[in-house]
Amino acid sequence: MVGYRFMGKAHSNAWRQAPRFFPLKGHIEMHTICGRNPTALQSARAQLGWQRACTDWRELVESPLIDIVDITTPNDSHAEIAIAAVQNGKHVLCEKPMALNVKEAQAMLAAAQKAKVVHMICHNYRRIPAIVLARKLISEGALGQIYHYRARYAQDWIVDPEFPLVWRLQKNRSGSGAHGDINAHILDLARYLVGEFKEVCGLLHTFIHERPLADAGGKALSLPGKTPRKMGKVTVDDVSMFLGRFENGALANLEATRLAPGRKNRIEIEINGSKGSLYFDFEDMNRLKFFETGSATDRQGFRDILVTQQGGVHPYVGHWWPPGHIIGYEHTFVHTIADFVNACVEGKAVRPNFEDGLKNQCVLEAVEESAKSGKWVKV
Amino acid sequence: MVGYRFMGKAHSNAWRQAPRFFPLKGHIEMHTICGRNPTALQSARAQLGWQRACTDWRELVESPLIDIVDITTPNDSHAEIAIAAVQNGKHVLCEKPMALNVKEAQAMLAAAQKAKVVHMICHNYRRIPAIVLARKLISEGALGQIYHYRARYAQDWIVDPEFPLVWRLQKNRSGSGAHGDINAHILDLARYLVGEFKEVCGLLHTFIHERPLADAGGKALSLPGKTPRKMGKVTVDDVSMFLGRFENGALANLEATRLAPGRKNRIEIEINGSKGSLYFDFEDMNRLKFFETGSATDRQGFRDILVTQQGGVHPYVGHWWPPGHIIGYEHTFVHTIADFVNACVEGKAVRPNFEDGLKNQCVLEAVEESAKSGKWVKV
Amino acid sequence: MVGYRFMGKAHSNAWRQAPRFFPLKGHIEMHTICGRNPTALQSARAQLGWQRACTDWRELVESPLIDIVDITTPNDSHAEIAIAAVQNGKHVLCEKPMALNVKEAQAMLAAAQKAKVVHMICHNYRRIPAIVLARKLISEGALGQIYHYRARYAQDWIVDPEFPLVWRLQKNRSGSGAHGDINAHILDLARYLVGEFKEVCGLLHTFIHERPLADAGGKALSLPGKTPRKMGKVTVDDVSMFLGRFENGALANLEATRLAPGRKNRIEIEINGSKGSLYFDFEDMNRLKFFETGSATDRQGFRDILVTQQGGVHPYVGHWWPPGHIIGYEHTFVHTIADFVNACVEGKAVRPNFEDGLKNQCVLEAVEESAKSGKWVKV
Amino acid sequence: MVGYRFMGKAHSNAWRQAPRFFPLKGHIEMHTICGRNPTALQSARAQLGWQRACTDWRELVESPLIDIVDITTPNDSHAEIAIAAVQNGKHVLCEKPMALNVKEAQAMLAAAQKAKVVHMICHNYRRIPAIVLARKLISEGALGQIYHYRARYAQDWIVDPEFPLVWRLQKNRSGSGAHGDINAHILDLARYLVGEFKEVCGLLHTFIHERPLADAGGKALSLPGKTPRKMGKVTVDDVSMFLGRFENGALANLEATRLAPGRKNRIEIEINGSKGSLYFDFEDMNRLKFFETGSATDRQGFRDILVTQQGGVHPYVGHWWPPGHIIGYEHTFVHTIADFVNACVEGKAVRPNFEDGLKNQCVLEAVEESAKSGKWVKV
Repeated sequence: MVGYRFMGKAHSNAWRQAPRFFPLKGHIEMHTICGRNPTALQSARAQLGWQRACTDWRELVESPLIDIVDITTPNDSHAEIAIAAVQNGKHVLCEKPMALNVKEAQAMLAAAQKAKVVHMICHNYRRIPAIVLARKLISEGALGQIYHYRARYAQDWIVDPEFPLVWRLQKNRSGSGAHGDINAHILDLARYLVGEFKEVCGLLHTFIHERPLADAGGKALSLPGKTPRKMGKVTVDDVSMFLGRFENGALANLEATRLAPGRKNRIEIEINGSKGSLYFDFEDMNRLKFFETGSATDRQGFRDILVTQQGGVHPYVGHWWPPGHIIGYEHTFVHTIADFVNACVEGKAVRPNFEDGLKNQCVLEAVEESAKSGKWVKV
Repeated sequence: MVGYRFMGKAHSNAWRQAPRFFPLKGHIEMHTICGRNPTALQSARAQLGWQRACTDWRELVESPLIDIVDITTPNDSHAEIAIAAVQNGKHVLCEKPMALNVKEAQAMLAAAQKAKVVHMICHNYRRIPAIVLARKLISEGALGQIYHYRARYAQDWIVDPEFPLVWRLQKNRSGSGAHGDINAHILDLARYLVGEFKEVCGLLHTFIHERPLADAGGKALSLPGKTPRKMGKVTVDDVSMFLGRFENGALANLEATRLAPGRKNRIEIEINGSKGSLYFDFEDMNRLKFFETGSATDRQGFRDILVTQQGGVHPYVGHWWPPGHIIGYEHTFVHTIADFVNACVEGKAVRPNFEDGLKNQCVLEAVEESAKSGKWVKV
Repeated sequence: MVGYRFMGKAHSNAWRQAPRFFPLKGHIEMHTICGRNPTALQSARAQLGWQRACTDWRELVESPLIDIVDITTPNDSHAEIAIAAVQNGKHVLCEKPMALNVKEAQAMLAAAQKAKVVHMICHNYRRIPAIVLARKLISEGALGQIYHYRARYAQDWIVDPEFPLVWRLQKNRSGSGAHGDINAHILDLARYLVGEFKEVCGLLHTFIHERPLADAGGKALSLPGKTPRKMGKVTVDDVSMFLGRFENGALANLEATRLAPGRKNRIEIEINGSKGSLYFDFEDMNRLKFFETGSATDRQGFRDILVTQQGGVHPYVGHWWPPGHIIGYEHTFVHTIADFVNACVEGKAVRPNFEDGLKNQCVLEAVEESAKSGKWVKV
Repeated sequence: MVGYRFMGKAHSNAWRQAPRFFPLKGHIEMHTICGRNPTALQSARAQLGWQRACTDWRELVESPLIDIVDITTPNDSHAEIAIAAVQNGKHVLCEKPMALNVKEAQAMLAAAQKAKVVHMICHNYRRIPAIVLARKLISEGALGQIYHYRARYAQDWIVDPEFPLVWRLQKNRSGSGAHGDINAHILDLARYLVGEFKEVCGLLHTFIHERPLADAGGKALSLPGKTPRKMGKVTVDDVSMFLGRFENGALANLEATRLAPGRKNRIEIEINGSKGSLYFDFEDMNRLKFFETGSATDRQGFRDILVTQQGGVHPYVGHWWPPGHIIGYEHTFVHTIADFVNACVEGKAVRPNFEDGLKNQCVLEAVEESAKSGKWVKV
């Protein structure tokens, strides 16, 4: 695994937990973790449960002892590492967003296809049990023809102007802000649940243009009132919003913001069709709300489905705890890695793969283009 | 109508509104309002829409021009006025609780039955559309055998120890506190929704024993720090709680309190049966939540039914506004009076009548007895 | 009053109730109701509480006995009636949307200003107590600089393709569909709560293009399977969505749809600022949710404010019932008419007036233009 | 660790995860797991991550290589194993309820105190972050004098009469039903949050008296309609309810049921005091609702606190994921074991200990006595 911070911690946990709760088709050995700061890396290695550590990712992608490479680094390094890994025949799991731009993503997909390895983008929210159930209901026609996909991903972690200029706020490291970081999630879910986008029209906006510079650990280098204050320029969006049309005729409204006080990690999705509706909120991720027009008229209402039933009734959760004993954020990674490992062992494709990553990137880029031109852009 | 304060206002509104929204079988003339303070009464008469006012309720119950007497006075006067009214052949609508005790209630019922008039107790919550729907679902067997009736009526209007000693806090005027005022409501709903009580075991408790004396308008006569402070003794309960068993075997848990900060007028009811459950909250009174075990296992969940559908789908609301346009507290009185008027015109019985009032009083008294003896008491 | 259907019923109720609950500065006499179908009109007159009825609105606007004209007719007649009324010196309350287009709205405003009468648009949602509280909190700076105004008005009353072609689905009668009918409401609230729009970019969409023709009462003229089936063309939008920028820099996202199964009359509004957030849902209209960043960090959370406190703490509701006894849809009209009557008596301006109506119309038209051109349009 | 089923799985996960997320003061070695069925045990050993397995718990409690014994077996074996373990100088973590009765619990406490080991009862819900926050708020006086503790633990896993007669439904194995299994939880939380019980009055009830016999794995031995049907008698309660008084004067209302359709693992707790209120629901366990009377009157409301803030703001969660990334059921065990391990290493006491277990057992037994006598019983 390359990377050891937030996503490194979440992925490592998933690598450890997957075999404890899911009947995997192969054995997981957590061989090597890779990072650039040797001290922090050694500490992470021990804490996260890896056998070895190295500071050069090339070592890792070239090691004959390694079958799978998991990339959790900042976005600007995804393409280089992933391409090298697949060229070395490794199966690759890559964090989202796949790349800085469409061109990189195309190169990654081409390399992976050529190498005939298993490739996956870690859009872990596709494996929230409630989301899988949503897809099942839609596939079964429970919503009829889809009219609306409306989603919002809202956070508030940078609402304080004193929050420092971490890598996620620098375009050269991250590619974009809320757009690629969180709008990418609800955009991927749109494609998973509704279908492909046809055209989009949107805007990107930055409200806070300058922030204190940060040290390597993400702390502000200087405090208010101290001279000289070291400030840097925010080069990504705080907010990304767009309207869109799907190829199947449905309408889209997506919004991502990091400036919504009180919304910590809220993903609200509402889907309306000719026969029913669905509603999901990630802060209450064990539930799915479902309305259908077909039932007796006096008792119609959104059903508050607690998606924790056992015995295969609800996806994934039967491997965890009894009904009503909820799971959390990290479990979505465990589900992702369990499916990925099984796919690698069997040499079968798994979704979302690099093709999905590329398609997502195309939509992201179309929105960026629209934000510049002020016009609708075909995807 | 006798009485012109809170309940007088709510009843007057209902008398005015009923013919505007419901197809009544008779014509309503708002003839006379009665109260003891002539000045306040005249102002209330004009404001509330009555043609005449009088200060002696005997005048009203004896008037040949009046068919219906509506009693909204404090509880200590219900029995005397109601008995005089029915003896004069008036149909009577009486506020709850029916009387100060079982003996009074028995006398009222006997008098009404002898007079062969229409008699009703204004348990207006029986005519909340969601509650009527709940009863329908239970009657249709949607819940199967009932196991649990659990209800709580919680308010906070006297949580401030400086709130003055109004008549509702004096046993000689009100009979009891939270017990007869609000536990009476959820007790009546228990009988409406589940059935008759068999035995009860409960407690009454007063946390705040002394309060500032109040003037006629309900304001404190003296302020903290002023000398001499005029305080009086609270002679009723702040809290009333009891466990019970219904004749059909279901279990009951009822609680009423005026000391729950943040709960303004919250009535929470949950009913569980062998096949399903219902949940209702009066602060969100246009909704009923319904769970049934029979539907497809992957999509079971409490349905959040917005009880505002037209065309007879949901009770009463078709006479008001389109779906989703909610109604409020006062509408329950309009429904009650619409049904009462139609019953009077047709000379038919209507529920809850004085017999219900008496049965409720018997349960209230059994709880009081249990609170004293510390034992279970048969109803 | 001109018009006697849905809005006629709501307005009549408000004219009757306002003097019962609010201390008005003048006396209301419900003089004449006007409509075209004499039979239906007479029945409405009696039911709704008007003294006289007439079938020619010119009679009404010219009568010297009438001071106020209230217009609740379909949108294509607003301009003609309103202009005639103000020219005759009447104060005018006009239903929303103000007119079929900007040109009509301009003529109405000019006439009203010239006549120096009191003029008001019945955007009754401005007088929901929770909305007034929202404005107060924003005015006091509790949200800091506003970043986001996000609103959705969702209904489902035409999701059934068999629902007939009523006047609201015909462009020549209504001007537009969800756009002018319900997007107009959340657009007006945007201006009330946040400020003026600078530019917009949006789309209008019709999913169901053909519906059964309706009779005068709004029932389908023919049933499925019957020959010959009489179908007509839907000439308005089912859905209206737009992104926008306010003059103060805030971002807007508004969506209105009549095709959201299970959403009966849902208006969801979320406003985020640098210091806090607000959330409102009209199906739960007695509540406002409020988050502020300033309080102790361990106990921050959206406050669920039940906007029913007495004694002037919360707007309007002190005139109704005790805390926790909720009010409903119709009360917003009572508040509107109480304020309008007081303004007429005192000859003072009241908001939202025809100027607001015109500004709303300008935004609506800018969105329509954007929907055609596929570009951002300055308001 | 003794036991390897549901609780064995939850505890094993906690032993594995605690050192990954929490800075423990000692090193955890997962030495031996113990159970009676050798085949199932070996499979559990590998799956759950233990080094060795044995079928005789005496081997384990006597092993010099083991410092800590964790008991997750059915309730009838707790006392014997725990006493042997502490007598061998092991620190003991024991699942709840502590024992079959007060007598056993007393013996366990005496043995543990004599052995001077660290002892803990696994009431894991005390370490839900929202519950710890609740206690903090109460300790700080945010609620003032406590008036009400009202809790309900509701499940529905045995609502189907075909659900088989597992050990939890047999009095000789479990001691009691909903009473000791789940009422024990909310009773322990009552003591944690409010204080000691003074007296109680309650009932136990069994609605379904006979169920199909189960095999060792908990499956029914025979199906409906098959002859001969093997049925067995349910010897425990389905429902346990009681009213109570705390020593500090607060009132209690506790209810536990396994017959509430749609309530999967719902723990609802409401606490009201003279200055504020708290509300918690375990199905939404990352949140705590808090009302305080002290804040500005126009913006009072229950705060919906998402208890996931980092940096020590909220307990425990800083070790997991960023704000808004929720945790689940199993995390409460990780917190418990992290605290227990640190206490063992430092030789310090930790709560809830065997003394708490005994006190809980005394309350449970007092309720049982009251259920038999129909009277209030002093604890």
